[in-house]
Amino acid sequence: RINADRLWDSLMKMAEIGPGVAGGNNRQTLTDEDGEGRKLFQKWCEDAGLEMGVDTMGNMFMRREGTDPDALPVYVGSHLDTQPTGGKYDGVLGVLGGLECIRTLNDLGIKTKHPIVVTNWTNEEGTRFAPAMLASGVFAGIHEQDWAYQRQDAKGKTFGDELTRIGWRGEEEVGARKMKAFFELHIEQGPILEAEGKDIGVVTHGQGLSWTQVTITGKEAHTGSTPMPMRRNAGLGMAKVLQLVDEIAWSHKPDAVGAAGHIDVYPNSRNVIPGKVVFTVDFRSPNLSVIEDMEQRLKDGAQKICDEMELSIEFEKVGGFDPVEFDAGCVTAIRDAAERLGYAHRDLISGAGHDACWINRVAPTAMVMCPCVDGLSHNEAEEISKEWAAAGAEVLMHAVVETAQI
Amino acid sequence: RINADRLWDSLMKMAEIGPGVAGGNNRQTLTDEDGEGRKLFQKWCEDAGLEMGVDTMGNMFMRREGTDPDALPVYVGSHLDTQPTGGKYDGVLGVLGGLECIRTLNDLGIKTKHPIVVTNWTNEEGTRFAPAMLASGVFAGIHEQDWAYQRQDAKGKTFGDELTRIGWRGEEEVGARKMKAFFELHIEQGPILEAEGKDIGVVTHGQGLSWTQVTITGKEAHTGSTPMPMRRNAGLGMAKVLQLVDEIAWSHKPDAVGAAGHIDVYPNSRNVIPGKVVFTVDFRSPNLSVIEDMEQRLKDGAQKICDEMELSIEFEKVGGFDPVEFDAGCVTAIRDAAERLGYAHRDLISGAGHDACWINRVAPTAMVMCPCVDGLSHNEAEEISKEWAAAGAEVLMHAVVETAQI
Ligand SMILES: NC(=O)NCCC(=O)O
Ligand SMILES: NC(=O)NCCC(=O)O
Repeated sequence: RINADRLWDSLMKMAEIGPGVAGGNNRQTLTDEDGEGRKLFQKWCEDAGLEMGVDTMGNMFMRREGTDPDALPVYVGSHLDTQPTGGKYDGVLGVLGGLECIRTLNDLGIKTKHPIVVTNWTNEEGTRFAPAMLASGVFAGIHEQDWAYQRQDAKGKTFGDELTRIGWRGEEEVGARKMKAFFELHIEQGPILEAEGKDIGVVTHGQGLSWTQVTITGKEAHTGSTPMPMRRNAGLGMAKVLQLVDEIAWSHKPDAVGAAGHIDVYPNSRNVIPGKVVFTVDFRSPNLSVIEDMEQRLKDGAQKICDEMELSIEFEKVGGFDPVEFDAGCVTAIRDAAERLGYAHRDLISGAGHDACWINRVAPTAMVMCPCVDGLSHNEAEEISKEWAAAGAEVLMHAVVETAQI
Repeated sequence: RINADRLWDSLMKMAEIGPGVAGGNNRQTLTDEDGEGRKLFQKWCEDAGLEMGVDTMGNMFMRREGTDPDALPVYVGSHLDTQPTGGKYDGVLGVLGGLECIRTLNDLGIKTKHPIVVTNWTNEEGTRFAPAMLASGVFAGIHEQDWAYQRQDAKGKTFGDELTRIGWRGEEEVGARKMKAFFELHIEQGPILEAEGKDIGVVTHGQGLSWTQVTITGKEAHTGSTPMPMRRNAGLGMAKVLQLVDEIAWSHKPDAVGAAGHIDVYPNSRNVIPGKVVFTVDFRSPNLSVIEDMEQRLKDGAQKICDEMELSIEFEKVGGFDPVEFDAGCVTAIRDAAERLGYAHRDLISGAGHDACWINRVAPTAMVMCPCVDGLSHNEAEEISKEWAAAGAEVLMHAVVETAQI
């Protein structure tokens, strides 16, 4: 059994770094706060006897040696970065839950044949630098590192420069490590487990994602003196496209979701008709053909809206991944552990993207989920109970130890 | 006749201060660039023998003495501040056209009985600090100065602090001056004069304005893992309200316009359903009852939209003025001057708000307009010809001199 109080205490200590404005966190990737959070995690890991490796994407690998140092390590982990108004658990639970497994194994004097490595993946959230899961994506060979380095935040700062600035650009070649398996513990971020009174979600699949950045261009003009028929209002075009996005997602009910979280209006002045808007449409589904259909209908429908309004429109795909099927062996290890420990569990499809979705391409991978209150995440009010966290970490530990062999 | 080349040269020199990114200007009120523009204007005025007064709102008054120093002065002017992506003429033509009248009177050795005062009103645009025409509004007794000082920009800086910071908070009590009349020259910012081949617009009325800041609150949540029926998407609510605004304005065709130029989405992250949006609806009409109807239908309709979507909504009126009828005597002075000088002219209703709209409350006031290309304004591509500028300044000078009496 893991130490629930110690895990909770670490979660609360990490949450003191980069506090939000409403009880959550703003510890966005490659900010000073991210650097501080990494240092604290490093210290805890060193106290637990782990050895650090950092790769050129800033991914942190904290290794507990196995009795056979040549055996492929079992990896666990998630991410320490947060949304601008994020919760205390999204990602953090997976990293500190991994650390808690190590601490417990240390307490119990348990040695595993395979080394165990606790990982913090850089820029999972994708808020500051799109796309999400950027560094695990480079690790898995999905993105080129140079391309990743050139990703820009809203102020035009690049990922590469910011990684160097906070001092976490390591020397190790990204993606060089080979894994026996990868396990990620995460809060559900959806309502199913809590609603059904389950302690554990055994994640069998992840839904796919498509991020399309849409730029609509009209003509800046005076809101007072420009006659209605002469207007080319990019903001009004966006309003119609946002409704289309909603209609498209509902049309695939219950297999799809869609929304736009990012919207920038230019020049954003009360008495200037918007000349340009840039926004990102987020479509998801466990079904690849549904995602493709939604993308196509967005393009066709938005183009039609803009043609009718004499606006121009451009589409750029800024993120995405296909639906994921996790490794049957790893999924079984998690389901068996939950069963053995007597937790109420059910199989789940992850609604969100996770580093595990990319690592699944290069190693046998699966995920454990625990409930969160009201299914709420990406909100400072995100909440879980100490018991839920402990149950998740316990199942994680059992699956890991079984895979790493005593 | 005024000196067209000199006027144009001054317009181009002023446009070098706070250049935009596309040939126009970004010289927003109370920025360092605004301070620089004021200094240049002050220097030109002093070279022309004018004496400066500055009031506690930063309004600049540049006085040419009359043969009867006790006679009430005739005022001319407009504003030197611009939109973030503004043109080179909006406001500036009225200030520098006023200066050109003085320079011409100096050249010709013409003395007027009444003093003439060229004015630069602070924060006409209302982009950085709402409402528009803030300082002329305080001058006219519409707003309290303390309230004006507390207006905040998007970064939370106050009008009062910024006025002090740039060094243009004068000593003179605002509104203490009495005027024989006020004349404002401005570009039309609409398409009518150019389309009809007129040189001069004689502004008889100004349409009224209503700015309602709308705040819609939903619930931040994950765009991927939150099921569609559980979403409270404030961005989608806004999209519906923006279409309502458009419908309301069209329903009063051709007597009304409506749009939202300012839109802020929180937390503005690609994978967070917007929890809050703040935007400003700009409705205008020459007819007060139409404005009132539009305001009411916005409130009722937007409330209904938000009720249905389980969103909450708040309305705050952040700017507005009733339709204006300018002074018959001043209007006639302008029409007669245009006629006498042989310019093609027509009566106009101003689509935009102007400092003249407030000053009209405390002094006989009217406006002269000149055409602008394609009716385009609040756009860096705003353009006029040297001939249009000169015609406007010439009519202005004749109306002013007639009113100020030789
Ligand atoms: N788990 C999580 O919130 N990941 C961020 C990437 C996504 O948008 O799904
Ligand atoms: N003339 C002008 O653009 N004034 C700004 C105030 C308004 O929005 O009408």
